[in-house]
Amino acid sequence: MKKIVLLGATGSIGTQTIDVVNHHRNEFSIIGLSAGHNMKKLSELLEVCPDVKYVCVARKADMEEMQKMYPSLTFFCEDKGLEELASLSDYDIFVNAIVGFRGLLPTLSAIKNQKVIALANKESLVAGGPLVKAALKKYNVPLYPIDSEHSAIFQCLQGSHADEVDKLIITASGGSFRDKTREELKDVTVAQALKHPNWNMGGRITIDSATMMNKGFEVIEAHYLFDVPYDDIDVLVHRESVIHSMVQFHDHAIIAQLGTADMRLPIQYALSYPDRLEMHNAEKFDFMKYPALHFEAANTKRYPLLGLAFEVGRKGGNLGAVMNGADEEAVALFLQEKISFLDIETYVIRAVEAAVYIEHPTLQDLIDADHFGRAFVKDTWKGVVE
Amino acid sequence: MKKIVLLGATGSIGTQTIDVVNHHRNEFSIIGLSAGHNMKKLSELLEVCPDVKYVCVARKADMEEMQKMYPSLTFFCEDKGLEELASLSDYDIFVNAIVGFRGLLPTLSAIKNQKVIALANKESLVAGGPLVKAALKKYNVPLYPIDSEHSAIFQCLQGSHADEVDKLIITASGGSFRDKTREELKDVTVAQALKHPNWNMGGRITIDSATMMNKGFEVIEAHYLFDVPYDDIDVLVHRESVIHSMVQFHDHAIIAQLGTADMRLPIQYALSYPDRLEMHNAEKFDFMKYPALHFEAANTKRYPLLGLAFEVGRKGGNLGAVMNGADEEAVALFLQEKISFLDIETYVIRAVEAAVYIEHPTLQDLIDADHFGRAFVKDTWKGVVE
Repeated sequence: MKKIVLLGATGSIGTQTIDVVNHHRNEFSIIGLSAGHNMKKLSELLEVCPDVKYVCVARKADMEEMQKMYPSLTFFCEDKGLEELASLSDYDIFVNAIVGFRGLLPTLSAIKNQKVIALANKESLVAGGPLVKAALKKYNVPLYPIDSEHSAIFQCLQGSHADEVDKLIITASGGSFRDKTREELKDVTVAQALKHPNWNMGGRITIDSATMMNKGFEVIEAHYLFDVPYDDIDVLVHRESVIHSMVQFHDHAIIAQLGTADMRLPIQYALSYPDRLEMHNAEKFDFMKYPALHFEAANTKRYPLLGLAFEVGRKGGNLGAVMNGADEEAVALFLQEKISFLDIETYVIRAVEAAVYIEHPTLQDLIDADHFGRAFVKDTWKGVVE
Repeated sequence: MKKIVLLGATGSIGTQTIDVVNHHRNEFSIIGLSAGHNMKKLSELLEVCPDVKYVCVARKADMEEMQKMYPSLTFFCEDKGLEELASLSDYDIFVNAIVGFRGLLPTLSAIKNQKVIALANKESLVAGGPLVKAALKKYNVPLYPIDSEHSAIFQCLQGSHADEVDKLIITASGGSFRDKTREELKDVTVAQALKHPNWNMGGRITIDSATMMNKGFEVIEAHYLFDVPYDDIDVLVHRESVIHSMVQFHDHAIIAQLGTADMRLPIQYALSYPDRLEMHNAEKFDFMKYPALHFEAANTKRYPLLGLAFEVGRKGGNLGAVMNGADEEAVALFLQEKISFLDIETYVIRAVEAAVYIEHPTLQDLIDADHFGRAFVKDTWKGVVE
């Protein structure tokens, strides 16, 4: 029985993690979880997670309210509560499925706590890569990816040695605007941007797919997860998102992982690794529904934020945190219809250009870099509208 | 340094095996080889295989001639010479790349000799499956496949457990007549049949690809190689032959192996397993040259010999040997333009129907079954023409 602490339980990855756990009650049990502001959803989740003993919520007021309703549970609140959850002793796997830079600190706490890390929080690596890598090494802790691309690569690497890898091939759907020219992108709306062709995901990641910022983040994550240099990471546009990613080895063999677009597979694999458990209540992949799979080059002129991510990744240091903070803020402004789709790119690129580069950042440097990226975007926008 | 005995050195797999060995002289050395009737080619190979000490040729007269030219080498001849090669003590890997039922006995000898088996000879499993499996178990000997489909599956299985496999998906190009209806197959010529769309192979295997008898053989081989029941082996038509085969696991993940059509990869992987060595003098796969990959169901009405192979596989016993013997003879008759393309199917199906089934065959039973299949086809043809 593996005991799990789950951050971000009310989100998409969180609820699917609970689904996986509840289909394998002899294998897994969730003993702690975090839920932001949605107390109704939290109450529902507590109904189906009978082993939960520790809960973290965002607001202190919610915590006090919930404590009355669930007197037998131990509650925490706010960001420090996430770190308290991560620092509990009686569990095995730390699933970090919260979105945003705030995911970094709990990841670091769980690593220091020597728990297995199952990571869906991109920012832990995109912004915090240098610190997280150092901590994983120092505390000798394994980290397994929870997202379709990195899980695919992780699966493809099984049974191989690191020095046999020639390159990683990360597939990209191309996002909701893949058939539009840059000229046509000028007038796209938020509603159009939110229609992802293959995956049903949250708002920010859907926009980040359309700009390929998300794919750029994945390139940086792949670099840290698998210790592969940026020159050996390719992005390949694959409209159908059936092949989730691939590894090319130095004997020219390419191993690919493919299947239906169901996040429960990467979640379950991260929890069950190195074993595979049966998947319940899910359709098997049917090639007859996908009679053709297509591939195109990923063009960094068409997707400048993908190009930026390679550049930022190569430079490293604090620039990932700047880029991520700027993007988080720019996407928020776009979703509020305050800036245009193409402005996202412009704002993020300018933020990275304006940042003071720190090669070996401390945690405070990364927090500052995140703040800088956000503030730069907000200030630029204010300058525009004022 | 792994020492190799190579059967079938002058054939396509044989010469590519020598190429692989000669690109990895610190890893491999060929100490014995067999060559059928082509003494000129054998002399050329001996030039580039400096470590060879033992040679087997088909005819005694050739052996005597060659012995004079190469007095320092030890020569064997005829089928018993192949077994003598297999039974040598001072080597590690037995590469069986000869074509036909005659490959079975040397395989069994090498297993008894407790050498690692690298198998390109299909008949060892298609005809001799029950005996080979029993011998592998008894002598605790590993057998690695040398052909693109089974090597692909073998690669996809790395790092997994047998009970996690849901099914094997063997891809099939559909052969040279894949775009023809059965009606259109009535008048096809030998020259047309020999034009395989993706692979440049020998005559028999190219015809067997067009009838999908070859794919049926591969299904039976896969059953024996990977201990997977026939119900869990699918055949999928994939025109481009880029994906060489796949494994679906019980968590619904599909792992595929893909790349260029280069037999040196499966040869090298069988020799270097569990490691992968660098591939020399070969192009890497380029997705831009394959912007679309296609998949279709494999229809056993269109390809009756594929259906026959599943049936024969499920029944087991001596029927694989009958089917293989009959097919070998029927393809030979077609290549001699003595029977039509569709006659191949009819003859093979009738031979299997006419055979006396033996559930637990001895080696002699398999030899008899092979003879029966061949004789049945020859006699039927004679009856037709007389």
